[in-house]
Amino acid sequence: MKKYRKQPYDVAEVRRLIEPGPVVLVSSASEGKTNIMTLGWHMMIGFSPALLGCYIDQSNHSYRMVVDSRECVINIPTTDLLEQVIGIGNCSGADTDKFALFGLTAMPATEVGAPLIAECYASFECRLADAHPNPNQPLFVWEIVRAHVAASPRLPKTLHYRGDGEFMLSGREISTRERYPNQRR
Amino acid sequence: MKKYRKQPYDVAEVRRLIEPGPVVLVSSASEGKTNIMTLGWHMMIGFSPALLGCYIDQSNHSYRMVVDSRECVINIPTTDLLEQVIGIGNCSGADTDKFALFGLTAMPATEVGAPLIAECYASFECRLADAHPNPNQPLFVWEIVRAHVAASPRLPKTLHYRGDGEFMLSGREISTRERYPNQRR
Repeated sequence: MKKYRKQPYDVAEVRRLIEPGPVVLVSSASEGKTNIMTLGWHMMIGFSPALLGCYIDQSNHSYRMVVDSRECVINIPTTDLLEQVIGIGNCSGADTDKFALFGLTAMPATEVGAPLIAECYASFECRLADAHPNPNQPLFVWEIVRAHVAASPRLPKTLHYRGDGEFMLSGREISTRERYPNQRR
Repeated sequence: MKKYRKQPYDVAEVRRLIEPGPVVLVSSASEGKTNIMTLGWHMMIGFSPALLGCYIDQSNHSYRMVVDSRECVINIPTTDLLEQVIGIGNCSGADTDKFALFGLTAMPATEVGAPLIAECYASFECRLADAHPNPNQPLFVWEIVRAHVAASPRLPKTLHYRGDGEFMLSGREISTRERYPNQRR
């Protein structure tokens, strides 16, 4: 599988890649083990600090790992990783080494213990900003402390989940930049 | 502009339309006035009840309206509404009647006071489930109490915001339904 050569990216810009709603792969590490889970239930919550809300239920093996380590990496897979995304979403780290099974490469992060996935277009290193933001829902608020993004292509072709095994692929890009005021929008 | 004839839709299925991450138009009504705002910072939080997390900052005129009325409608625009989406996102309901300015049609909802937007592919009637889900962030948790979705086309062509006036359009659909276990995923 293709590995992306990633470069440092301004964390205040990560909305460009997250807001359109791609499926992400959440990698984590705890007690000498790593894991990966798929996640479609996420949202931007802040520009700077860069905050990301994620829904991670206790039924996920990753839940305990992210709670204990208070760290993760949010990786953005491109469409060529469809098979890996399907596979990762349909097995559990409780009995599976997902990096090994799916032939993905764990790279060391800069600030956190969780690994980057080399085959993903972008990797955002996260620290837990708010462990129990909502007593009623398994919501995690992460602060993205470091971002690594491939220099090429300019934007990734991403997978967007609809449920029941259906995915929407990203389509073409439109720029209306000249129509927007010079403010953060 | 084209108006969609919408039909009742199982609220437990709304993730199919929301999870891929489209820009939505949030309509509200309070004290005899209506408003619309654009929203890209949202996420699914539950299947049943159907819960949707939204980021609505106090700088938005809609903030006071949704806080006071505790209701809104989440409408999903299709790509033909690009101009309206840009316009709505770049003016304020404080001094603008957005339905009038953008030639959109307010239709009465079934359960809430906020209007449906007839020109949108889907409209989800929402009641506030959790006004202060997080003391640190302007997050709202809505329960979708009624859903109205166009019968045709089967899935909408949607807009996905990247910031700075850049939009990603939805692309083609892939089904791997036969690969998924018979569980809610």
